[in-house]
Amino acid sequence: MGKIIKGKIVADALNEKLISEVEILKKKGIIPKLLIMRVGSNGSDLAYEKGALKKCKKIGILSEVREFPETIPQDEFISEIKKANEDKAINGILIFRPFPKQLNENLIKYEIAPDKDVDCFSPVNVAKIMEKDPTGFSPCTPSAVIEILKYYNVPMKGRRAVVIGRSMVVGKPVAMLLLNENATVTICHSKTEDMPSVCSQADILVVGIGRAKAVNSQYIKEGAAVIDVGINTDENGNLCGDVDTEDCIEKSSMITPVPGGVGSVTTSILAKHVIKACRQQNGGDSIYE
Amino acid sequence: MGKIIKGKIVADALNEKLISEVEILKKKGIIPKLLIMRVGSNGSDLAYEKGALKKCKKIGILSEVREFPETIPQDEFISEIKKANEDKAINGILIFRPFPKQLNENLIKYEIAPDKDVDCFSPVNVAKIMEKDPTGFSPCTPSAVIEILKYYNVPMKGRRAVVIGRSMVVGKPVAMLLLNENATVTICHSKTEDMPSVCSQADILVVGIGRAKAVNSQYIKEGAAVIDVGINTDENGNLCGDVDTEDCIEKSSMITPVPGGVGSVTTSILAKHVIKACRQQNGGDSIYE
Repeated sequence: MGKIIKGKIVADALNEKLISEVEILKKKGIIPKLLIMRVGSNGSDLAYEKGALKKCKKIGILSEVREFPETIPQDEFISEIKKANEDKAINGILIFRPFPKQLNENLIKYEIAPDKDVDCFSPVNVAKIMEKDPTGFSPCTPSAVIEILKYYNVPMKGRRAVVIGRSMVVGKPVAMLLLNENATVTICHSKTEDMPSVCSQADILVVGIGRAKAVNSQYIKEGAAVIDVGINTDENGNLCGDVDTEDCIEKSSMITPVPGGVGSVTTSILAKHVIKACRQQNGGDSIYE
Repeated sequence: MGKIIKGKIVADALNEKLISEVEILKKKGIIPKLLIMRVGSNGSDLAYEKGALKKCKKIGILSEVREFPETIPQDEFISEIKKANEDKAINGILIFRPFPKQLNENLIKYEIAPDKDVDCFSPVNVAKIMEKDPTGFSPCTPSAVIEILKYYNVPMKGRRAVVIGRSMVVGKPVAMLLLNENATVTICHSKTEDMPSVCSQADILVVGIGRAKAVNSQYIKEGAAVIDVGINTDENGNLCGDVDTEDCIEKSSMITPVPGGVGSVTTSILAKHVIKACRQQNGGDSIYE
């Protein structure tokens, strides 16, 4: 019988490290700062923002939100990004997406300064993850997956890891991060044939497809570590993940719950990335990646 | 008993398509042009260059080589790249690597214009492969692998593909390209445990590790298509691949030889990428990717 592994304990441990890291920086007269750029006031953006601001405060990072009207013209938004890029007081920039129609994401993503891009919006950071360049920034959720696996000492080197999903926010970057940890990585997706048999070879199974309880015990190898990245609502309107936790807990060695799993770690990762950006901008190495 | 599938027949078929494509462009007054930038005169660079120039001529693409002294200072080399970026007569740029010590590849890669970068030197193209952006350019060798598989109608969608090797010139990009073709992709490498058992699940096995005849029949699933990207010399000083072809031919359905396999297709892919770049720079779509 596996155990439910909560994200909070991982986040708490990380927060503690980050707090002491900020203290060291403060002694040098440096205070890391995150800027959140938000177009409009989407509910899920606001919810994430609230959590991010709270986390920054807890860790001792400065934060600022710049809200722009839904109708902001593209050139104006780009000049706002450039202003943030050049502002030396800002170390990390998070830009909420998707954008309203008049803003072309495929164009705007080239504007954010890669060294301040703490959530992997810039193609330069996408490339850095693939190249295993330690100065890069992965999106926060895939980094949270690795943080959890490391916290629980789940062996990755040489082990079979299977990722279900190939999005640019979860599947592909998490596959690259697992590869960087020397796992043997398989990427499954909607076109995969006989997915349960592929997944049931996984020592580590990461699921990020956005379908409520799509993964049952048939997908699970005896003793596997299961990381559930999905956030869905079930038939009763309750939050649930992509994994049918109840059905899978017996076979797996550990499994993250939804809510209270990966999602609890992402804002701590965001803070970690802001501190990393700050250190790098101040000529330090990046001890926390 | 499988068959040896030569690259030449794939290259010939592709060349024919490219020749007619160039003819269409010429009728519009457009002639695609490749610029090769070479620092020093390394033997393997010269050999590849010779093949590339010959292929360009055959297909009707203009080409030019700019050779720079081994000792060229970085700022001078960068301004040469910028000159080529701005030159409207040049559609594709190939820059030989690795560089001599004074040239920092990690800095210079940001200088080449992504839309002329026909061999995926720029991080922008690395990101585009990962994002499945059809305007991007993969390195030529991984594209050659896909070209061969498509020519021989090897089904990829939903099938198990295993890539041995995780370099930025072969392993990782070929894994992304196979994923873009909807294969279920596994990446193996030096730290993989029990590699033969992982590989023997592959309907498609792509090997790019640079170790002579490292892959034997234990790695092969009955009926698998085997693509050998390695170029090595064996104990008798003869060219050979990463796959022990003789040992694997019985179980595989098809297998590429070395020499005469993937390597025969790469310069045709280079030409294809130059034509694609030319079309895109002239406002056309990219029918050949």
